[in-house]
Amino acid sequence: MKVRVAINGFGTIGKRVADAVARQPDMELVGVTKTRPSFEARRAREKGYPLYVAGAGDPSEFESAGLPVAGTGADLFARVDVVIDASPDKVGRTNRALYEAAGVRAIFQGGEKAEIADASFNALGNYAACRGKRFLRVVSCNTTGLARAAAVLGPAWGIDHWEATLVRRGADPAESKKGPINGILPTFQLPSHHGPDVRTIFPDLSIATTALVVPTTLMHVHVNHVRLRREPTDLPSVLEAFRASPRFHLFAPWEHADGTPQVMEYARDRGIGFNDMMENVLWESGVRLDGRNLDFFQAIHQESIVVPENVDAVRAMFDLAPDGPTSIAITDRALGLTPAR
Amino acid sequence: MKVRVAINGFGTIGKRVADAVARQPDMELVGVTKTRPSFEARRAREKGYPLYVAGAGDPSEFESAGLPVAGTGADLFARVDVVIDASPDKVGRTNRALYEAAGVRAIFQGGEKAEIADASFNALGNYAACRGKRFLRVVSCNTTGLARAAAVLGPAWGIDHWEATLVRRGADPAESKKGPINGILPTFQLPSHHGPDVRTIFPDLSIATTALVVPTTLMHVHVNHVRLRREPTDLPSVLEAFRASPRFHLFAPWEHADGTPQVMEYARDRGIGFNDMMENVLWESGVRLDGRNLDFFQAIHQESIVVPENVDAVRAMFDLAPDGPTSIAITDRALGLTPAR
Amino acid sequence: MKVRVAINGFGTIGKRVADAVARQPDMELVGVTKTRPSFEARRAREKGYPLYVAGAGDPSEFESAGLPVAGTGADLFARVDVVIDASPDKVGRTNRALYEAAGVRAIFQGGEKAEIADASFNALGNYAACRGKRFLRVVSCNTTGLARAAAVLGPAWGIDHWEATLVRRGADPAESKKGPINGILPTFQLPSHHGPDVRTIFPDLSIATTALVVPTTLMHVHVNHVRLRREPTDLPSVLEAFRASPRFHLFAPWEHADGTPQVMEYARDRGIGFNDMMENVLWESGVRLDGRNLDFFQAIHQESIVVPENVDAVRAMFDLAPDGPTSIAITDRALGLTPAR
Amino acid sequence: MKVRVAINGFGTIGKRVADAVARQPDMELVGVTKTRPSFEARRAREKGYPLYVAGAGDPSEFESAGLPVAGTGADLFARVDVVIDASPDKVGRTNRALYEAAGVRAIFQGGEKAEIADASFNALGNYAACRGKRFLRVVSCNTTGLARAAAVLGPAWGIDHWEATLVRRGADPAESKKGPINGILPTFQLPSHHGPDVRTIFPDLSIATTALVVPTTLMHVHVNHVRLRREPTDLPSVLEAFRASPRFHLFAPWEHADGTPQVMEYARDRGIGFNDMMENVLWESGVRLDGRNLDFFQAIHQESIVVPENVDAVRAMFDLAPDGPTSIAITDRALGLTPAR
Repeated sequence: MKVRVAINGFGTIGKRVADAVARQPDMELVGVTKTRPSFEARRAREKGYPLYVAGAGDPSEFESAGLPVAGTGADLFARVDVVIDASPDKVGRTNRALYEAAGVRAIFQGGEKAEIADASFNALGNYAACRGKRFLRVVSCNTTGLARAAAVLGPAWGIDHWEATLVRRGADPAESKKGPINGILPTFQLPSHHGPDVRTIFPDLSIATTALVVPTTLMHVHVNHVRLRREPTDLPSVLEAFRASPRFHLFAPWEHADGTPQVMEYARDRGIGFNDMMENVLWESGVRLDGRNLDFFQAIHQESIVVPENVDAVRAMFDLAPDGPTSIAITDRALGLTPAR
Repeated sequence: MKVRVAINGFGTIGKRVADAVARQPDMELVGVTKTRPSFEARRAREKGYPLYVAGAGDPSEFESAGLPVAGTGADLFARVDVVIDASPDKVGRTNRALYEAAGVRAIFQGGEKAEIADASFNALGNYAACRGKRFLRVVSCNTTGLARAAAVLGPAWGIDHWEATLVRRGADPAESKKGPINGILPTFQLPSHHGPDVRTIFPDLSIATTALVVPTTLMHVHVNHVRLRREPTDLPSVLEAFRASPRFHLFAPWEHADGTPQVMEYARDRGIGFNDMMENVLWESGVRLDGRNLDFFQAIHQESIVVPENVDAVRAMFDLAPDGPTSIAITDRALGLTPAR
Repeated sequence: MKVRVAINGFGTIGKRVADAVARQPDMELVGVTKTRPSFEARRAREKGYPLYVAGAGDPSEFESAGLPVAGTGADLFARVDVVIDASPDKVGRTNRALYEAAGVRAIFQGGEKAEIADASFNALGNYAACRGKRFLRVVSCNTTGLARAAAVLGPAWGIDHWEATLVRRGADPAESKKGPINGILPTFQLPSHHGPDVRTIFPDLSIATTALVVPTTLMHVHVNHVRLRREPTDLPSVLEAFRASPRFHLFAPWEHADGTPQVMEYARDRGIGFNDMMENVLWESGVRLDGRNLDFFQAIHQESIVVPENVDAVRAMFDLAPDGPTSIAITDRALGLTPAR
Repeated sequence: MKVRVAINGFGTIGKRVADAVARQPDMELVGVTKTRPSFEARRAREKGYPLYVAGAGDPSEFESAGLPVAGTGADLFARVDVVIDASPDKVGRTNRALYEAAGVRAIFQGGEKAEIADASFNALGNYAACRGKRFLRVVSCNTTGLARAAAVLGPAWGIDHWEATLVRRGADPAESKKGPINGILPTFQLPSHHGPDVRTIFPDLSIATTALVVPTTLMHVHVNHVRLRREPTDLPSVLEAFRASPRFHLFAPWEHADGTPQVMEYARDRGIGFNDMMENVLWESGVRLDGRNLDFFQAIHQESIVVPENVDAVRAMFDLAPDGPTSIAITDRALGLTPAR
């Protein structure tokens, strides 16, 4: 018996999670909501996803665009076991009452505060702790990237302290009204909120983050300085730990992946939907070990990195898998991600 | 008996044409060349494309990267009927002697001068005139976009005169060393070379073009002012003509495709390889008819628009199809392009 | 007796017009308004410009920033002969009642509709027709650029028809919240509103404009195709006509000014306040004459091109100069602009 | 008797240093060299700077551009006491022999290796150690920014360790051929070369730097994490230390300087030549103190920060001032920089 899933909000995250859910053997995508017709709504129909009109949307607008709708959001919520809320930041907060009224479970995104849910979720980080919860929150793209890396390094060598600088993209590729066009914008919250957000997954982690925004749409890049508790044997052993983990993709020097433009080019070459790169991306040339001090760059594809996490969150919530690694393996196989080696 | 095809140069154009050729029922992709190992070379191997070392490349570099090679470019050319030369601009010129020496036919790209080949090619424009030629040249992305539109408008209403302003992207997405980062660069050749290049397809067309370069990587946009010879019935009849032609994609106003960021987002949603948009892209809101005067914007995806043209050029060269429309239909079905309506 | 001038809104346009007014021999800058303290407000004080609190602003915010204020906007308006309204687009509309109540004249910017004023103004275009008016509107940056060029070409050779493509900057340099970061946005109004706006200056001009927005902050670039009524002797005679006009700056080929980045670099070298380029910028290599057909690029510095126009508008309004050329000469000498040759 | 100074290379750095030298009471700008005519060469003439033809340049090109030249580089070097070499990176290396042949002293820029000179120079850092040297090297923009901050923090509280992430601009505003247009490029040298370069000024400083390149032209931004040896009293005392130092400019929160676009806007408002910002720029909101741990952002204007340093280097070399602070005060007064408070 598959878990019946609704996606509330078929935007950047929602459309990806919809595809991902549709590919899972143990889930059924029942429908998606959209506020107004658009090329994305049209694409939902072309993919055969039943379309429901969200909140303030007007069904007649959809009809005149030739996009038949199956009902309202409330109609959809009544037909599912769980709603994945992929509405814009802070809207999930007001949606929670709708899910409670409908008696369904829900998964929120990282744009919402941690208090919205019973627990914050990261598959590599705290799958077990999230089993059976009624409301979960998948942490944001940057937090997910940091939590995954912590999930690799912590068990292996222990983490004494972590300093990360997050060089963030200014807007997503299709957000043409946001800037900056030319300039760098420091985030005047020192340290930034990302560190505390990682601690919703790893409460005891000592981590401080600093953030800036730059004029690019492709990916964020993290500059990480980690002081480990125990000294790794050597650099190759650290690279091997990342390679051996799911949700990591490493570029070798001979691949000539100079930066995020080439990473995204690789993603297009690979051809996973929307040219997504759901893994943490590391460059072998961009990792350095000096005693217990580990420095590394990682690139984070803000549009897609949380997609497999949402899938695993459903699985944790309904206890569909014996453990996190099993869920991750099912998810990643279905999505075609780089397998752990 | 399939035509055996080699791709010389597995870069932006080459890798796309390789995939396209591999999908055609009447062609066989025998191999591709590459100068050095890279993530693209690795991807060629993952796709099962035999890899040959181009020109000055060193086979041992490939070996140490774990990428076995099947021979040199010369080895490859000896095994095929035609080479599609997708080497960097102006390099095709020096390659022509190699193809002659190998006794194979060749198709060059628009970065080469028209004189390199027996004829310049555009599938909607002059398929018939290119049948059986030994050397063809597929015109450049901008020229292809203009030629296609001329192939729709000319037969229907006649073209008195065409003025086009080409707002060009500064670099491809993965070319991180080219600019400008901030600024507009006029092309001080008035009119620009694109008009004469369109006349390699339509020798009698009266067309003048002006070009500028702007800081974007996604697509070119053409601003077209066409004075037709005969007055169309109305604007819908013009939109219908574009819609009824293969290799055109129109966005309706309700689709909210505001510009090239959204067009590329649609391309990612659609999911054709590399998020390509091989069709001329028009916006219904961006077409205006005033008597015999037709104004329209069109967006051109510089990385992929010539891909189906290369496939059709092979078919014209070896007379594999009874006519252009048939070849186009075979190509586009294999590639999943927007069908003519 | 100098005309007493207030600047309402000390932003991108206001701060420049303030400096320009302060340098004129026949005008007195009485004060400027600002809504909240900022580095620009601080700079106003450092320059000795009395600061008044605009509309909803709070004087105590200025005080705690150490910026003493001289009163409210109403206080300022009571002390002047004319207010130059440099408030954000569409706000001037609501301000007009304030000026009427204060019994002062006013000059609005091009972001307001033409109906706000008794006439629209361009110094080279229609100075005489604006003498003595109570309310004037200086047309927008793009319209100013087109009107100036029409004022040169029209009298000399007559203008049969003008087609212009306006490649617009996405945001000003200090507007870090606007995009697009990567992409081209066509303006789906065909023709764009700029043509009709030029006709507020030249009612009989046949002109059609098309616009797009691109990711740059520096300048707009216009691509102009003008069919003249009479054939110029040769290209040099056309270049000479532009050179002989005030408010035009031409770059010679040997100056290596490849595009707007270099034009702005020249502006920084020249050192007029804020690195402004208040002239229409043409490149000699970017002008082509073919019979009666004239093609030329011109770059327009959106932040500053209307600055001298506002000064001349004051002079026209109060009839401070015998004619437009005299006013322009006074203005340009005071500002240090490229003199006509 | 003034020190006679030549500028070899009138580009981004050279033209600024020329202006700066021309304003000093104890120096005489004898001439500047240029390879080919350009708007910058024309500007040199307009400012009255004698123009000499550098290296491979052709005097007849200058003549046909109407720019008379006073001789060759060798002619110029024979007329001065010191040459400030502002030629492109790595060219200074080959120029050194010319200066030795001419028997003149020389100052090189940070694009050259430290070995080119007798000492590397930073005015706040090691003025005294550079007195009387024959060849000096002014460290690069990023190194200068770090060295200045170290010169403030070190004497006051001692520096235990410094970690800095340098978010670098991709190209200067007038360099329209460099990228990236869209993307982030990590520098795969861990730590980057900047840390060791700071140690050419402060040999004992423990500092590690990491760098990335982003698509902006305005400024670099440094993210600094400094562990001090002694705990400052409080955050205001640290802000006061920066404010009390020359070559630092702090923005208060009420100034609304959100990032580098606004910093450069302030620079334009302030109006020092070329809209330069020769000081280290800090934001009060972007400084945090936690015990001995100090975090702060600083923005570095890559085009101009080394300009006053070159002036002071001349003064150190010829022992024109009793000490560094005196030289700095003379330089900064002449240039109009933000005075220490």
